[in-house]
Amino acid sequence: MVNARTHFVLHCPKYQKSRMASLALTDTSSSATARLFPFRRRNGVLLLRHLVGPLPRPPPTPLRPLTAVHPSNALYPVVSAAGDGSAKVIDGKMVAKQITEEVASEVSRMKAAIGVVPGLAVVLVGDRKDSATYVRKKKKACESVGINSFDVHLPADSPEDEVIKFISGFNDDPSVHGILVQLPLPPHMDEENVLNAVSIEKDVDGFHPVNIGRLAMRGREPLFVPCTPKGCIELLHRYGVQIKGKKAVVIGRSNIVGMPAALLLQREDATVSIVHSRTKNPEAITKQADIVISAVGQPNMVKGSWIKPGAVVIDVGINPVEDAKSRRGYRLVGDVCYEEASKVASAITPVPGGVGPMTIAMLLSNTLSSAKRANNFGNH
Amino acid sequence: MVNARTHFVLHCPKYQKSRMASLALTDTSSSATARLFPFRRRNGVLLLRHLVGPLPRPPPTPLRPLTAVHPSNALYPVVSAAGDGSAKVIDGKMVAKQITEEVASEVSRMKAAIGVVPGLAVVLVGDRKDSATYVRKKKKACESVGINSFDVHLPADSPEDEVIKFISGFNDDPSVHGILVQLPLPPHMDEENVLNAVSIEKDVDGFHPVNIGRLAMRGREPLFVPCTPKGCIELLHRYGVQIKGKKAVVIGRSNIVGMPAALLLQREDATVSIVHSRTKNPEAITKQADIVISAVGQPNMVKGSWIKPGAVVIDVGINPVEDAKSRRGYRLVGDVCYEEASKVASAITPVPGGVGPMTIAMLLSNTLSSAKRANNFGNH
Repeated sequence: MVNARTHFVLHCPKYQKSRMASLALTDTSSSATARLFPFRRRNGVLLLRHLVGPLPRPPPTPLRPLTAVHPSNALYPVVSAAGDGSAKVIDGKMVAKQITEEVASEVSRMKAAIGVVPGLAVVLVGDRKDSATYVRKKKKACESVGINSFDVHLPADSPEDEVIKFISGFNDDPSVHGILVQLPLPPHMDEENVLNAVSIEKDVDGFHPVNIGRLAMRGREPLFVPCTPKGCIELLHRYGVQIKGKKAVVIGRSNIVGMPAALLLQREDATVSIVHSRTKNPEAITKQADIVISAVGQPNMVKGSWIKPGAVVIDVGINPVEDAKSRRGYRLVGDVCYEEASKVASAITPVPGGVGPMTIAMLLSNTLSSAKRANNFGNH
Repeated sequence: MVNARTHFVLHCPKYQKSRMASLALTDTSSSATARLFPFRRRNGVLLLRHLVGPLPRPPPTPLRPLTAVHPSNALYPVVSAAGDGSAKVIDGKMVAKQITEEVASEVSRMKAAIGVVPGLAVVLVGDRKDSATYVRKKKKACESVGINSFDVHLPADSPEDEVIKFISGFNDDPSVHGILVQLPLPPHMDEENVLNAVSIEKDVDGFHPVNIGRLAMRGREPLFVPCTPKGCIELLHRYGVQIKGKKAVVIGRSNIVGMPAALLLQREDATVSIVHSRTKNPEAITKQADIVISAVGQPNMVKGSWIKPGAVVIDVGINPVEDAKSRRGYRLVGDVCYEEASKVASAITPVPGGVGPMTIAMLLSNTLSSAKRANNFGNH
């Protein structure tokens, strides 16, 4: 996990003065990072803007449903701009806002039509500050769209049974449509046992093996897809990036980002390769990809030289690096050296403001879908 | 499915006179082919020997357990023989025989120690000749190692409920440790419903989404791994082929071979790419691989030019091609053009006599493991 320590940066022009860091791929989940790191958006965006200049903003557009968009109908089609230094910025903050508005509208419509309000239960064990921050953010996001939130906060030394008892209660409660267990759990608990206790009908995180198995299988449909990789694919859809027939490389193979991202790309008919800590020459493999999704939690590990000209780059990493100029003493960077990669790619997500905001938006969307399905209301 | 029709061959020197066939990758399962096609080993092997000369046979060796073998301890280590035209033949028939003997020995030991005999139940619906043949082969294989076999044969027009009722009966029967539903089911049945009815503790085929999900997830263990891909990896292990850190390409992404084979290679730290019907330039991608597993059901689709010198090639395809000289009017060939690939690869499985015989051996092995686990006997 990278959330609790500060990482340093290597070989990226803007960060050359920073201290050395291990370049080993870690296979840690950047989603965990995204979930746990209390990033403060305002400051982060300001810092990033300082680096890359003002973020181009597409004009306001009508809302669109959460479905695949054919490139010709994309809201913000990516026009190949290989090598001219002007990669399109994939604005996750803006897309997340749009999705959040779509969810809010659907929540209102369902409430008006059948009187049902979606509910999300969050189980938090222990006193990690980062976890507490994330839970707060989720509660706030739920409130903002009209989803009820329920939370249970248990002491770090609670027995596993106690946690599972609460999960079972939420499984049986018809006003709860999604259950999220905040990770990491205290070390004395078996994460597998606890996560498996969540009913697959309420597994809005999509981490249950049945949902992962269905995601892997052709002709099967998972009830939920994990939020962060779903957010990555949603960005590709909304920016009209064609996936079918393209070569895609996923860097990192965590259960919560890398692996499900690879399965999602595969479902959309990309030719997928997974790069991980045991991969020899990850640069050469990554350089073949039309689409790169990086989720390793190593700041600036993916250099510009790793990127094929014209590729689309989705950077899941949210890594704190030392920054004496920042009031907080650190700033956030991705797995990808943005400055270099944005000169080669045709489109790229910034950090922060790329994939990060999509995770909570997808959680709200999954909770809405679950409530719709439970009540047989509309499309879900 | 390719089992019922005859395929023709293109571009492989020995088959140039054959008629043209579509070269499109089909994503059909060659495991289904392997399962359903009534291949007659003796004839096939004779034909193949005619093509490649006598198959080299490793000397008889002591039995080994079904575990990963470090290359330095391999029974039949693959010595790189790139390009010298003398790829080592990976003799699946011999390895399957060895595994079958190991299973028989363990079955006896368990019976003697705790009086339990493993049991496999096979559910057959309809009157497909190929399915009936396969069921017969399985019964015979069970008998040969001392596993009890139970089978139910239902008419093709049976209602789905009826099939599920029998499966439930086997789920509750402690003398049954594995349940196998013979595929394909008649078209009026929902394959997903029927397969999901099999208890995951008796899912010796490994097709239940929970088992597939656990196979995909790091830190989780499936109760069973699908037999054909497990057989592929077992061949690599027994021939001491290093997987960790190697580039592997799986051609085909079926639920029963390609996809789980890719997940297994990934678990063993290969860098895996999956080639399928939507892949552009499959030749160039395959040519980068140190290990190729092909499971598409297209005769001789993978040419010698697709293979990296020194690669190890596992050919899952068992495809009938027209052969006027054969009494039967056809012979069996793999997905890989053996004659060409064996000049480039360092090791290769023949067809027949490669992966084919491994599927039933793995089924026996999975059934034994299940019985051991159910009775908490020894390692399982």
